[in-house]
Amino acid sequence: MGKQFKQLKLRNIEITDELFGEYVKKVSEKIISHQWKILNDQLDDAEPTYCIQNFRIAAQKESGQRKGVVFQDTDLYKWLEAVAYCLAAGKGKEYEPLADEVIDLIAMAQEGDGYLNTYYTVIAPQKKWSNLVEGHELYTSGHMIEAAVAYYQATKKEKFLNIAKKNADLICKVFGVKEGQMRGYPGHQEIELALVKLYRITGCRPYLETANYFIEERGKTPNYFVNEIEARGGYEFFSEFDDYDLEYSQAHIEPIRQTKAEGHAVREMYMCAAMADLAEELENKELSNTCSTIWDNLVNRRMYITGGIGSSGFRERFTTDYDLPNNTNYSETCASIGLMMFGQRMASVTKNAKYYDTVERALYNTVLAGINIEGDRYFYVNPLEVVPEFCTEHTYMDHVKPIRQKWFSVSCCPTNVARTIASLGQYIYAQDEEALYIHLFISSKAKTVIEDNEIEVNMKSKLLQNGCITIQVHATKSTSIKIRRPHYAVDEILWVNGEKAKVSVEKGYLIIHIGAGSSEIKIDFGVKAKWIAANKNVREDAGKVALMKGPLVYCLEEVDNEKYLSEVYVEANANVVEVEPMKALVGNIPTLSFEGIRIKNKHLDENQLYGVSGLEKVGTNLQAIPYCLWNNRGEGEMTIWQKARV
Amino acid sequence: MGKQFKQLKLRNIEITDELFGEYVKKVSEKIISHQWKILNDQLDDAEPTYCIQNFRIAAQKESGQRKGVVFQDTDLYKWLEAVAYCLAAGKGKEYEPLADEVIDLIAMAQEGDGYLNTYYTVIAPQKKWSNLVEGHELYTSGHMIEAAVAYYQATKKEKFLNIAKKNADLICKVFGVKEGQMRGYPGHQEIELALVKLYRITGCRPYLETANYFIEERGKTPNYFVNEIEARGGYEFFSEFDDYDLEYSQAHIEPIRQTKAEGHAVREMYMCAAMADLAEELENKELSNTCSTIWDNLVNRRMYITGGIGSSGFRERFTTDYDLPNNTNYSETCASIGLMMFGQRMASVTKNAKYYDTVERALYNTVLAGINIEGDRYFYVNPLEVVPEFCTEHTYMDHVKPIRQKWFSVSCCPTNVARTIASLGQYIYAQDEEALYIHLFISSKAKTVIEDNEIEVNMKSKLLQNGCITIQVHATKSTSIKIRRPHYAVDEILWVNGEKAKVSVEKGYLIIHIGAGSSEIKIDFGVKAKWIAANKNVREDAGKVALMKGPLVYCLEEVDNEKYLSEVYVEANANVVEVEPMKALVGNIPTLSFEGIRIKNKHLDENQLYGVSGLEKVGTNLQAIPYCLWNNRGEGEMTIWQKARV
Repeated sequence: MGKQFKQLKLRNIEITDELFGEYVKKVSEKIISHQWKILNDQLDDAEPTYCIQNFRIAAQKESGQRKGVVFQDTDLYKWLEAVAYCLAAGKGKEYEPLADEVIDLIAMAQEGDGYLNTYYTVIAPQKKWSNLVEGHELYTSGHMIEAAVAYYQATKKEKFLNIAKKNADLICKVFGVKEGQMRGYPGHQEIELALVKLYRITGCRPYLETANYFIEERGKTPNYFVNEIEARGGYEFFSEFDDYDLEYSQAHIEPIRQTKAEGHAVREMYMCAAMADLAEELENKELSNTCSTIWDNLVNRRMYITGGIGSSGFRERFTTDYDLPNNTNYSETCASIGLMMFGQRMASVTKNAKYYDTVERALYNTVLAGINIEGDRYFYVNPLEVVPEFCTEHTYMDHVKPIRQKWFSVSCCPTNVARTIASLGQYIYAQDEEALYIHLFISSKAKTVIEDNEIEVNMKSKLLQNGCITIQVHATKSTSIKIRRPHYAVDEILWVNGEKAKVSVEKGYLIIHIGAGSSEIKIDFGVKAKWIAANKNVREDAGKVALMKGPLVYCLEEVDNEKYLSEVYVEANANVVEVEPMKALVGNIPTLSFEGIRIKNKHLDENQLYGVSGLEKVGTNLQAIPYCLWNNRGEGEMTIWQKARV
Repeated sequence: MGKQFKQLKLRNIEITDELFGEYVKKVSEKIISHQWKILNDQLDDAEPTYCIQNFRIAAQKESGQRKGVVFQDTDLYKWLEAVAYCLAAGKGKEYEPLADEVIDLIAMAQEGDGYLNTYYTVIAPQKKWSNLVEGHELYTSGHMIEAAVAYYQATKKEKFLNIAKKNADLICKVFGVKEGQMRGYPGHQEIELALVKLYRITGCRPYLETANYFIEERGKTPNYFVNEIEARGGYEFFSEFDDYDLEYSQAHIEPIRQTKAEGHAVREMYMCAAMADLAEELENKELSNTCSTIWDNLVNRRMYITGGIGSSGFRERFTTDYDLPNNTNYSETCASIGLMMFGQRMASVTKNAKYYDTVERALYNTVLAGINIEGDRYFYVNPLEVVPEFCTEHTYMDHVKPIRQKWFSVSCCPTNVARTIASLGQYIYAQDEEALYIHLFISSKAKTVIEDNEIEVNMKSKLLQNGCITIQVHATKSTSIKIRRPHYAVDEILWVNGEKAKVSVEKGYLIIHIGAGSSEIKIDFGVKAKWIAANKNVREDAGKVALMKGPLVYCLEEVDNEKYLSEVYVEANANVVEVEPMKALVGNIPTLSFEGIRIKNKHLDENQLYGVSGLEKVGTNLQAIPYCLWNNRGEGEMTIWQKARV
């Protein structure tokens, strides 16, 4: 095990990026206040969340019925986490009083022993910890703890952290292998990574040990969940648990013996992220090997080109190797956020930059697609191909929304996107005792101190335009900068202070040594639009190509290319021309243009379902835009994979 | 309304066909005895049915628990119906004592008031008629009545018919609009068409009136089902009724106002068949127009090229226009049998031959695919494209079995296929006062009397080989023969007694007048293999072609063409060569051979999921066999729609 990556402080990172800067700005200027209204049910045309109201009821400040899903509290916690990241970055100061006030409310909703959950406190106090499979108590606590840690880091105020510690202390007391403790573990993982965060900030080892207990105990025989369900006699909250299988929540065998990405995708990602954390903290090589094995299965067999995961629309879950349908998939936004979290931690455990190829893939495509440019509408499900008229009841696309929604009845994604964008800096940079690491090429300014060396960085990225990155560094002493060499780099050219430099590549990093004072690193990654194909086992993509440029997956939209995108073919290596970015979109990213054909049937009349084939081809000019920006110009067809003519 | 078609008596039809003859023979020689063993749980390696045992328990000849699904009795009834058709055709005499014995058992299981249903009699006598949505009592009675009518027609024995009449009398008493009657109707339609059959054989008008009542009452507001479910507080038998919608059982509006094929496909077909019957019997033009409207929606928007219907794998149901996925569909064998029934009746109501194009499509493709050549394994689900490794838990193909099964826990299809094949003659011929009708070109001998004119026919069909049909007719008087002109006929040539004849075509029939004595009609329909395309709204088939010859849809199988059929492309109008029939298959049907290409990716290594495209083409020779014969040579990939290269 190497030395741990340390995060740079968010307050020391300023995102100046043409693309991400837009969204980061939206978080503090619009999204947080917009979501606050939703949490308070102040938006007439969004589904009520009852979120704040539930806390008021639990705090006995209001009477009435506690409503919403059992884990409704987490919307507030993720919102608070996003607020914390904004405050840390010196933005959204106006939300701090709101946050403090709602933290007071949370404190009042907490029970004397530290228990905190509006559902169980109000509705079923006698049933606490009795339905770990579905009840989401530990999951909810996990999000609370993450928010509290972030809020403490941002504000140094201890009130929320103390709520979290009190709750975590209770959990550490209730769960474990000692006599009198419950041998249970969460139905939806999340508490594990939260307890690691709490351990890291408090140094209090029981948090780490309980996190590790939850992973070690999970899936053991006799199976806790089997016994719990048997005792209860069936599902209580969610009808999908009617035919619950242990794989769904990765409780079929102990996690350390798992080899594939199985079950509910978000559960799997949160668990794997925690496992990587524990492997690092406990220097558990076996656990880190398990993480690698699952990772390899995930990214080489079960991931979409967009970094979307969980290909089944039925249970938001993984299915089997290479089952990657483009129009019926789930690919939940939260699952790709989980993939970013897992990848970030794998890079930390292994000190290998390759994991950030996937973090970047998920971020630039599925995660960013999860929110519209305006910042007030969201995708929960992220298909790679949409024909709106089939996204209707009873088809296999009935879970797919062809336009982003204001909110959802299970609304994990909107606040998750907000907290991820608000904390984006942590994915761009990292440091250890020896070097500053640059993982993502998102324009930003950062400063940090490494072993008394004060380092300032100003990265100007044209990755999405010409593939060139300029990094101005000022350091008080000489230092190493380790820059991730992305998977799409081709014959990259690197200049240090204007001179071409030959640098070594180690574990995916370009290693650059610079002296004290100011230096300028410039890299041309040779980024060009490329036609990508999928493994032949992915039957859905056979004979198809997708257009990528750098980390961006491109797509065709009806608004630019007319209806019936299913008729469209491209020559297998069609020449791609970069044209002006579309005005209605953001990020100043070139539109990609190329010639294609449409195959039409000249014999069939409109009302005929089948008839003698008379296929003929008609030339057409096609325009592709980044997938992450689709559906910002109205409802219509969209496709990423295009049929290739060879 | 024209005069009704009359069925020819099955005893007067002998199937001599190279293809269907094989299956007809199998029914009496093997299938009936095989299924009898299954109904008696005498096959060790098939799922137990408890079917006969349930009747023994209901008849108080045995104690124990009544088991199986609530409509388990229908397996026996459909078996008896198949036995009846065999006996009518002078075959399977050895089953008559078995049938008589089991009819005695049925009589003993019937209650004093005529009630007959092993589930409710044994398990829940106090709940009779209380769960029409799920309970299948009327559905079960319907199959019993159909069997009893067939058995009476075959044997002239009245015992079973009397059981049926007694049960039907009870139903007519219980249901209706008079005071004291229940205003309910069946959750699964079937009783309606059975009561029409019973009316036709008994002349007893209340049977017809109650059948009509069930159609007229259905879907009225206030809705019977809504009230029933509310009173019960949820589903009782089938978890899919947890989120039951009225469209599922076509109870959302009155059938006469329905315009689209909606809901569960078998329910819809059985209802439509009954509606067409009633339109004919009651000369109800409005009802027949409704049938036409639903039919048009069905065959022009919601039917597979194979005559498969019900494109959703989730609820065996219709979804939306043009939603016809090839690998995740249901296309239940029973639904296509229902489509044959509906089409047969529409032809009778309208005297238009076009409906038999669809009857033939369903029969030659999906229905025949429902059973293996050996006659002991069945498909319930009939996909158009299969990759076995994806037909697994959690994928959207998890309901698809890549090989035929011995039996099913819900096993409607095997006995349904048996009774359909055993009664095949009724689909080939019909008559009215003026003419003999030939609807299908299945080699057979038939005789009948039309208004004192004794007519004998010997049809020798080479439809699947060279498209030529020879029909020898002997009639005591001059007569008209109306021969369906199938949709695939091209510039057909017709000879009567060796002379080329020009004949008129009316409503899809070639009308041939022959004199008394012997005549020979010969028709060359100009049948050739043709590449067929689908409507552009069927996105799944865009840019694809399917090979048909006459009524047969062809497919590629892995065993003949290697794995990864998804790589295969054909030139849009590839020249098709007919080669020798495959020895392992039946029917002496030519294999179709043509050149294609495989598109392979030369850049990607086996473990890489995505990579820069390097598609290249490799020539390949392809062999296609009739879809109905697929999966008779082991498990493997199969596809009907092939990618076209234009």
